[in-house]
Amino acid sequence: MPRKVSVLVAGSWGTAIASVLAENQLDVTLWSRNEEQVMEINQEHRNHRFLGDTVLSDKIRATTSMEEALLQADAVIVVAPSSALRSVASQMRAFLSKETLLIHATKGFEADSLKRMSTVLADELPDYDAASIVVLSGPSHAEEVIKQCPTTVVVASESMAAAEAAQDLLINSYFRVYTNSDVVGVEVSGALKNIIALGAGLTDGLEFGDNAKAALLTRGLAEISRLGTAMGGNPLTFAGLAGIGDLVVTCTSKHSRNWRAGYLLAQGKPLPEVLQEMGMVVEGVKTTQAAYRLSRQYEVTMPIAEQLYEVLFNGKEPIAAADDLMGRGRKDEID
Amino acid sequence: MPRKVSVLVAGSWGTAIASVLAENQLDVTLWSRNEEQVMEINQEHRNHRFLGDTVLSDKIRATTSMEEALLQADAVIVVAPSSALRSVASQMRAFLSKETLLIHATKGFEADSLKRMSTVLADELPDYDAASIVVLSGPSHAEEVIKQCPTTVVVASESMAAAEAAQDLLINSYFRVYTNSDVVGVEVSGALKNIIALGAGLTDGLEFGDNAKAALLTRGLAEISRLGTAMGGNPLTFAGLAGIGDLVVTCTSKHSRNWRAGYLLAQGKPLPEVLQEMGMVVEGVKTTQAAYRLSRQYEVTMPIAEQLYEVLFNGKEPIAAADDLMGRGRKDEID
Repeated sequence: MPRKVSVLVAGSWGTAIASVLAENQLDVTLWSRNEEQVMEINQEHRNHRFLGDTVLSDKIRATTSMEEALLQADAVIVVAPSSALRSVASQMRAFLSKETLLIHATKGFEADSLKRMSTVLADELPDYDAASIVVLSGPSHAEEVIKQCPTTVVVASESMAAAEAAQDLLINSYFRVYTNSDVVGVEVSGALKNIIALGAGLTDGLEFGDNAKAALLTRGLAEISRLGTAMGGNPLTFAGLAGIGDLVVTCTSKHSRNWRAGYLLAQGKPLPEVLQEMGMVVEGVKTTQAAYRLSRQYEVTMPIAEQLYEVLFNGKEPIAAADDLMGRGRKDEID
Repeated sequence: MPRKVSVLVAGSWGTAIASVLAENQLDVTLWSRNEEQVMEINQEHRNHRFLGDTVLSDKIRATTSMEEALLQADAVIVVAPSSALRSVASQMRAFLSKETLLIHATKGFEADSLKRMSTVLADELPDYDAASIVVLSGPSHAEEVIKQCPTTVVVASESMAAAEAAQDLLINSYFRVYTNSDVVGVEVSGALKNIIALGAGLTDGLEFGDNAKAALLTRGLAEISRLGTAMGGNPLTFAGLAGIGDLVVTCTSKHSRNWRAGYLLAQGKPLPEVLQEMGMVVEGVKTTQAAYRLSRQYEVTMPIAEQLYEVLFNGKEPIAAADDLMGRGRKDEID
């Protein structure tokens, strides 16, 4: 009998991961709170809201029952939005076995507490061995993974056995999985990239050009790396798939909500109006606030995050923020 | 009297650097072998072949006389193509004072010898202090610098005094200059990025998508960093402006010759036909050969450079090369 793997919840990335697992001949269960979505996946093999007309593998079964999803699961992959992770994890508590491999692919910090996602999971799952939680990240548009375009990701855990078990489950000819032991670095990179994507939208909106955007990515990576290292991450992780890889894919996609929000801000619209026009959550806005607070807590200089904070929350003109970034004192690149 | 700075030669990047210097109120001399180009720059303030109708500062004076260019120059910036650098440097020998600051912005390895550009300069200028040579690199399309779009670059030298003198000459409100002490890392990054740009064209030509391109950049950076570190570079340089910064700007520009060559190869055209169709030098082709040889010399694994070598010189199908890259053994990201 094939091994059973469950994915919670059925957004675009969760469904794409479920498709990789189905391709790998695993028995895949997709959990969602939404009954209609579950019926659509089971009966029409579609997840229309997130993936349009894409036809899903008939090996993917959906359910609204957490018990059914977690019972006898060999592995569980949690892909809830960062704001929902704590609530999903608390629902998992009664059913998750200590023997089940636990992987998450949620990007962001928890609002207010500023906790990383694996810490939120550990909080809510006190009987589970926190050191064997795995985080999955990297440059991976869901739409391309569903189409089986070549994609690379990283799975990180303090337990190398757990990271390798995750690698075994997911790796195939179009989905290449690297292990890494740096949970902090991978989680911090995944959260902070959205700030830089917002900045990339601003830069493009101001028509600053490709040199400026490359500068933003590179110096943005330098400050993500400074904060992440202060929080305990490995500097080399930031130069890897969860760091620069994900940053490149997010900042060059014009479909990103963060990019779009930055682009609208560059047109001179104030933040409340931009958010109203977009009608949905813009992760990078919350993350800019988180980075602003974390940079103070860890006493790390983050000039790009700081200028974005001024633009978002104190009405600073984007062009003045750019001038202030370009006009800072003379620096050495590596200091 | 303003300080005198000379730029050799008057290609697009040399002319853009001359414009930055003119903006900084320096006395700028642009050296070229080509009499017509010199007349055009002096009389019409244009460099039509490289920069179309762009009007240049009338502070830029051009000359065909190496003596005139180097006499009493406070600084000289050499921006010759890599294949011409040795010959330009040997012409400089008779006129270059030991007191003159020497900066170069040439990317590539010398064919056959595989020497870095600062080593070629040191060979030809035996009386000059090699440790004070400065290399200038980073994400900087000339066309955008001419238009004064915000741009960041790095200047590296074993001598921090020399790097800081270069920073002082060049820095202004739209051209931000960082110092770095890692000449090897900056030179190796600048040379090897063209291989990855060629690979990016191939990936795009095969319609692999954004995930694959981000993977190529990230894993390409990892192998540039492996070779560069073995050659004596600092791993952090590769995550900086000369490394990932220049890589991003080169791989996302569809105007790059290297990208274009890769794109044509993906259509199934053999290399000689591609080169004939392009009618000009494709730096990444020579550099792939150089990387192939250097990876053996330094005993460093460079799977992407190796597969590109097979496609370019041994007729391997691009799709088979991609399959071999995706199907390698399971790896840890950082090892």
